Amino acid sequence: MVNKDYEIFELGDWPLVSGETLQRAQLAYKTHGTLNAAKDNAIVFPTAYGGTHRDEEYMIGEGKALDPTKYFIIQINMFGNGLSSSPSTTRAPQDKGHFPNVTIYDNVRAQHKLVTEGLRIERLALVCGFSMGAIQTFQWAAAYPEMVARMAPWCGTATTTVHNWVFLEGMTAAIRADAAWNHGDYEEQPVVGLRTIGRSWAGWGLSPTFYNQQLYLEQGYTSVEDYIVRAWEDSFASQDANNLLATAYTWQSANVGMTPGCDGNKAKALGRITAKACVIAGQTDMYFPPEDIELDASHIKGAEFLIIPSILGHQAGAGVNPDDISFVDRAIASLLSR
Amino acid sequence: MVNKDYEIFELGDWPLVSGETLQRAQLAYKTHGTLNAAKDNAIVFPTAYGGTHRDEEYMIGEGKALDPTKYFIIQINMFGNGLSSSPSTTRAPQDKGHFPNVTIYDNVRAQHKLVTEGLRIERLALVCGFSMGAIQTFQWAAAYPEMVARMAPWCGTATTTVHNWVFLEGMTAAIRADAAWNHGDYEEQPVVGLRTIGRSWAGWGLSPTFYNQQLYLEQGYTSVEDYIVRAWEDSFASQDANNLLATAYTWQSANVGMTPGCDGNKAKALGRITAKACVIAGQTDMYFPPEDIELDASHIKGAEFLIIPSILGHQAGAGVNPDDISFVDRAIASLLSR
Repeated sequence: MVNKDYEIFELGDWPLVSGETLQRAQLAYKTHGTLNAAKDNAIVFPTAYGGTHRDEEYMIGEGKALDPTKYFIIQINMFGNGLSSSPSTTRAPQDKGHFPNVTIYDNVRAQHKLVTEGLRIERLALVCGFSMGAIQTFQWAAAYPEMVARMAPWCGTATTTVHNWVFLEGMTAAIRADAAWNHGDYEEQPVVGLRTIGRSWAGWGLSPTFYNQQLYLEQGYTSVEDYIVRAWEDSFASQDANNLLATAYTWQSANVGMTPGCDGNKAKALGRITAKACVIAGQTDMYFPPEDIELDASHIKGAEFLIIPSILGHQAGAGVNPDDISFVDRAIASLLSR
Repeated sequence: MVNKDYEIFELGDWPLVSGETLQRAQLAYKTHGTLNAAKDNAIVFPTAYGGTHRDEEYMIGEGKALDPTKYFIIQINMFGNGLSSSPSTTRAPQDKGHFPNVTIYDNVRAQHKLVTEGLRIERLALVCGFSMGAIQTFQWAAAYPEMVARMAPWCGTATTTVHNWVFLEGMTAAIRADAAWNHGDYEEQPVVGLRTIGRSWAGWGLSPTFYNQQLYLEQGYTSVEDYIVRAWEDSFASQDANNLLATAYTWQSANVGMTPGCDGNKAKALGRITAKACVIAGQTDMYFPPEDIELDASHIKGAEFLIIPSILGHQAGAGVNPDDISFVDRAIASLLSR
């Protein structure tokens, strides 16, 4: 059991893009460092899929770009991740499979309320994040351009592409196919479905080269089967199935064009951004190919676009490999110095 | 019901690489055209995954490279595909989930017996095939170099890479996860598992660009969901689950290095080849990336390596798009003229 290492911000009943209301909505967040007197050293760092702020604390530390001796860093957990309001934590009638559909925009609007009303911060030095954290970063900069001075999304797009949507359909289908999932009304986790999604996801998470060069052996696994079971099946088997489905909906429906006033138009939404942007892709990322991220960056005035030279696929941005994450860290440090 | 459009070659009890014996083994094959007096116009064309010779007859016709007015073309069905000996057609004790593990080499050795003893042909003008048909083509040319004058594998490798193995694990897991599969002992097909494998496979079968440019609309589908259901779920739901698993084993275990005398060494096996080779990859193929196929081609003396300039992923080789398949047809015609 992890000690409670986060705080809760009460949003009250939170209206959603869908028209539904998330009842007694809560955001779980953790801060690092101290807000300075000028209130200009705050950084928002939203979380990624299938994880919490704990999985990304490795990015934060003295001497790193996200340095808590210089910055006030706010890690905010996504709705559905098991710490903020989620299928696994919400009371009836919105519990389990009855949790409403939540979008990226719903998340970012709630995070904005936490930052402005809860923490009384009006300007952010940076918003940054990995994967779904990157998606939220784009949404932050487009929805609140006057507030976001800098942005550094890595390994994620502003709007989910059709192919990315299809990939996620294939993954979540493994949970929905498990009779034990029971449309979300289960007491025990649908373990077969969770292990199946893990086994299926394994092929997407890394590049062909990673597997073909057997780099899992260098990571301490004894075989590809051992790697699939321990790195992927066990990881998914430790999650709540409804939480995975809820956040998959959030991912699949991501569309920066739903920013108010943008008429569903991605280019228009990204064109509003005034943040200094460093947009980063993983060279061999199979969910968010560099071309897709570069296209998004091209709509942001003056954006820098960088590619992590890695064969770790999407995992290049996940902190698995020191060289890869050092690349991201240096890019963010450089952005913060500008 | 399709009229019986093929012939059966009885192999008798067929010893397998695994040490087991496939009892009363049968190969289903269909021939097109006439063997000439010199017996030098025969072409072997083995089948791909999840299909039969019928799915590839579009490659054969007057004026095409595989022209039955010039060549004697022998389409041979893989073990496990539902026409040759398969889990769905074999009697107890080797029926259903008890069907033995069959390798690519087991298939090619059986095909060699059909060709040499059944059809009394000693020399082949060409062996060619798509996907698993390509894998069999490499194996033919390596196992019987004196017999294969030309080879044209497209969209397949000589040996299954680790990443390709992982991709297939994720797909077949969807069938194994369905309780209705029951370790192969079912009366009704495990339809949920079959639909799930279809939905999961959809993301792999085409390139991101295909989806992101919504090219399924040009193929007559009304939405991406309609495309996934009709093109992928329905297709897998029409298959026998045990046949899909049996042939997935054949694919996953493919290793041209198991050619006798090659000590498991792929380069050594490919180095034996004397066929004039035209090796073809699909530019955006996600199971058999061009790099992997080019590497295999590099081990074959004098091999020509071509890339189909297509955004259809692996489907570039499946006859979906006339331009793509015309590219393959022209390449084979050119090879046959040399």
